[in-house]
Amino acid sequence: MSTTIAAISTPPGIGGLAVIRLSGPAAFDIASHHVHLPEGEKKTAFALFKRDGQTVDEVVVTLFRSPHSYTGEDTVEFSCHGSTYIQQTLLQALIDSGAALAEPGEFTRRAFLGGKLNLSQAEAVADLIDSTNAASHQLALSQLRGGYAQLLAQLRSQLVDLTSLLELELDFSEEDVEFADRSRLRSLVAQLQQEVTRLTDSFQLGNAVKNGIPVAIVGRPNAGKSSLLNALLSDQRAIVSPIPGTTRDTIEENLNIDGLTFRFIDTAGLRHSDDPIESIGFDRAIQSIRQATVVLIVRDATVTFNEYSIDDIAYLLKDIPQKEKIIFIIHNKADLVQPPYPPGIALSALTGMGVDQLKQSIVQAVRQRMPSSDGAMLTNLRHYQALQHVSTSLDEVAQGLDSGLPADLVAIDLRNALYHLGTITGEVTSDEILGTIFHRFCIGK
Amino acid sequence: MSTTIAAISTPPGIGGLAVIRLSGPAAFDIASHHVHLPEGEKKTAFALFKRDGQTVDEVVVTLFRSPHSYTGEDTVEFSCHGSTYIQQTLLQALIDSGAALAEPGEFTRRAFLGGKLNLSQAEAVADLIDSTNAASHQLALSQLRGGYAQLLAQLRSQLVDLTSLLELELDFSEEDVEFADRSRLRSLVAQLQQEVTRLTDSFQLGNAVKNGIPVAIVGRPNAGKSSLLNALLSDQRAIVSPIPGTTRDTIEENLNIDGLTFRFIDTAGLRHSDDPIESIGFDRAIQSIRQATVVLIVRDATVTFNEYSIDDIAYLLKDIPQKEKIIFIIHNKADLVQPPYPPGIALSALTGMGVDQLKQSIVQAVRQRMPSSDGAMLTNLRHYQALQHVSTSLDEVAQGLDSGLPADLVAIDLRNALYHLGTITGEVTSDEILGTIFHRFCIGK
Repeated sequence: MSTTIAAISTPPGIGGLAVIRLSGPAAFDIASHHVHLPEGEKKTAFALFKRDGQTVDEVVVTLFRSPHSYTGEDTVEFSCHGSTYIQQTLLQALIDSGAALAEPGEFTRRAFLGGKLNLSQAEAVADLIDSTNAASHQLALSQLRGGYAQLLAQLRSQLVDLTSLLELELDFSEEDVEFADRSRLRSLVAQLQQEVTRLTDSFQLGNAVKNGIPVAIVGRPNAGKSSLLNALLSDQRAIVSPIPGTTRDTIEENLNIDGLTFRFIDTAGLRHSDDPIESIGFDRAIQSIRQATVVLIVRDATVTFNEYSIDDIAYLLKDIPQKEKIIFIIHNKADLVQPPYPPGIALSALTGMGVDQLKQSIVQAVRQRMPSSDGAMLTNLRHYQALQHVSTSLDEVAQGLDSGLPADLVAIDLRNALYHLGTITGEVTSDEILGTIFHRFCIGK
Repeated sequence: MSTTIAAISTPPGIGGLAVIRLSGPAAFDIASHHVHLPEGEKKTAFALFKRDGQTVDEVVVTLFRSPHSYTGEDTVEFSCHGSTYIQQTLLQALIDSGAALAEPGEFTRRAFLGGKLNLSQAEAVADLIDSTNAASHQLALSQLRGGYAQLLAQLRSQLVDLTSLLELELDFSEEDVEFADRSRLRSLVAQLQQEVTRLTDSFQLGNAVKNGIPVAIVGRPNAGKSSLLNALLSDQRAIVSPIPGTTRDTIEENLNIDGLTFRFIDTAGLRHSDDPIESIGFDRAIQSIRQATVVLIVRDATVTFNEYSIDDIAYLLKDIPQKEKIIFIIHNKADLVQPPYPPGIALSALTGMGVDQLKQSIVQAVRQRMPSSDGAMLTNLRHYQALQHVSTSLDEVAQGLDSGLPADLVAIDLRNALYHLGTITGEVTSDEILGTIFHRFCIGK
């Protein structure tokens, strides 16, 4: 923490302006070798950036005095002309004057170590920068602004209370007292388990929202799956022909609808075939259903809907845990058939009839499963894994209490749960965890 | 000028942070719809950027009050997280609140119209952003910091004085007086012509420094031209073989040496050939010599240097204005021959012997022709053309004075010279000139 670091913080390339950030105990000193710093109360000043006595650029200098900066350290930002040559030259000049080149995410790492952000907030910064749609942006921003950190803090404080009571009993172990009412303890643990499960349950969708919600388009050959993909994208993405089995490999395309990013996956028609490529395609289609958040089962509306059709759909969905999926039955080619249509969504990929309604229905179904704007939703794999450990430890606490295990053994499991909970917001941490987290940041943040 | 404009000013893409600029009379008003503006004397503040009541990002807001801003107008800069989604959303929010999307260079155009920069300085901003090496950067910066604007202002003021004296005579035309001493006038015009010629003469090199200095590598087949290119680049760029005529088309590669960018051009061997492709190659080689700033005439040192060799070189250079060229005679394959070597640079492209010395000699020769750091050097084609017009007008003034033309006719030519001089720094301008100049800027500057 004693070094002073520098990096170009704006995106790489040429632009109107670029920002170079310098942070650390020597930031003001290093900066003063190159520019006249703003004086007195002033924070911003126009200045000439000099290197070896020669003017390199006209810049705007902004000072952030510790602790009122992103990192909590003294920080200087130079806003310079956005030529790559100038950006490199200014950065090199700062390094020649004693700054170290910042590693990816090092500014945010310092913000965490300086207590400006907790670990889950620091991770949200990277998510925020990576966000490409309204929903993932909103999830990252809510995590940055506290998110479930408050919920976790509550869980943690309840766990700490529990553990203290149990550990107090150990101090008086010879007297055989029980400070902690076992049945109250047991119900508190059950309540904590419920909260943790609610969070871990939100992970599949949270993660999908962050990375693109997978939508599998499946059905019998020639039902019009590829035509539906094209209609959804308003583009001739997939090759379409009247020959059953035209699509053999899966085809993926991203589409933003109402601020959510969907990954539509067109699959091979589900039939057993002697064509080895088509067989592989079949397996991939089944795989796509397993991984999908939304499944669109496409059928040909011109074929009578009867028990056979229902069997057909049931066959597709066997072995698939349906409560985790949003499933739509699509009656395609509905322009060729008179209403009324069977339950589901009737549309025509050919004429576009009903396609917008399908889009809206998908968005609505996903949004219904998302928490309200202040609700917590898990999007981070590391948090998910930590909470699974918390859950396992809590299970052991519950078992221990149920079987009348001594307080000291139960306390060990409670400490375990506390440990894993602490890794999420960073009360408990290690260089390895920090390394993994900040490695995925861009340099300059 | 009554609109308020907004744009993303940092390079396109994802980074740690991005800057969105808002400038115009309503800048503070529009900004206040989305953030709490810094209050009182404060210029910088941390703020939540809101859109439709929802927080979009945590930003740093910096206010620049008119006239203390780049454009001279009220300006707000938002430093936000560098996700493309956030950048687009913030920009869209400002546009929804009444800002117009800035056109390329519009901020700089306003800086010019508001009197913060003259036209040649505004052009220097674009050159500065495009600069990719130390020399072109230094030329652009010197132009931005005034450059030959001062020299031009001196020329202009002298011309204005001359014109005023001549025009004063017109008021007293019936009395037949001469306020302006014709011989003093004549010598002043000669002095101005000299200054203008010095500037226009600097254009060829100035333009080359800005765009890469062309270095033609020419000579007989099999002299080792392609080997020399590879040795200069430390790379196997050109195909090399012992077969004469291996290189048929010209090959270009850029190389930075000591802050100067060179465009090395390997050419076909100069011999008359029946191969039609080789013939075209020959013509291109001659063309390359014409366009080059530096010419490297490569010969095979193992072939005796005699009158024939000198004829050979003279043949290459016939019809080429030598005073504009920097010419080096290279004795290649010098590792196979004992010293002393004939005049020129002895080297071996094969072993690398003497290649660094050649590089240094080229750089030195170019730098000698460049003005000292405060000297003026013309890099801008528009300025060059304007000065050529000035020169023509001054020629006509000189002729008029020599032939005793009446003051009113001489004054017309002087006004012409003044007009063209004025177009450089923008005392005289038109929408068309401005359009051409600012069109090449990036958006956000």
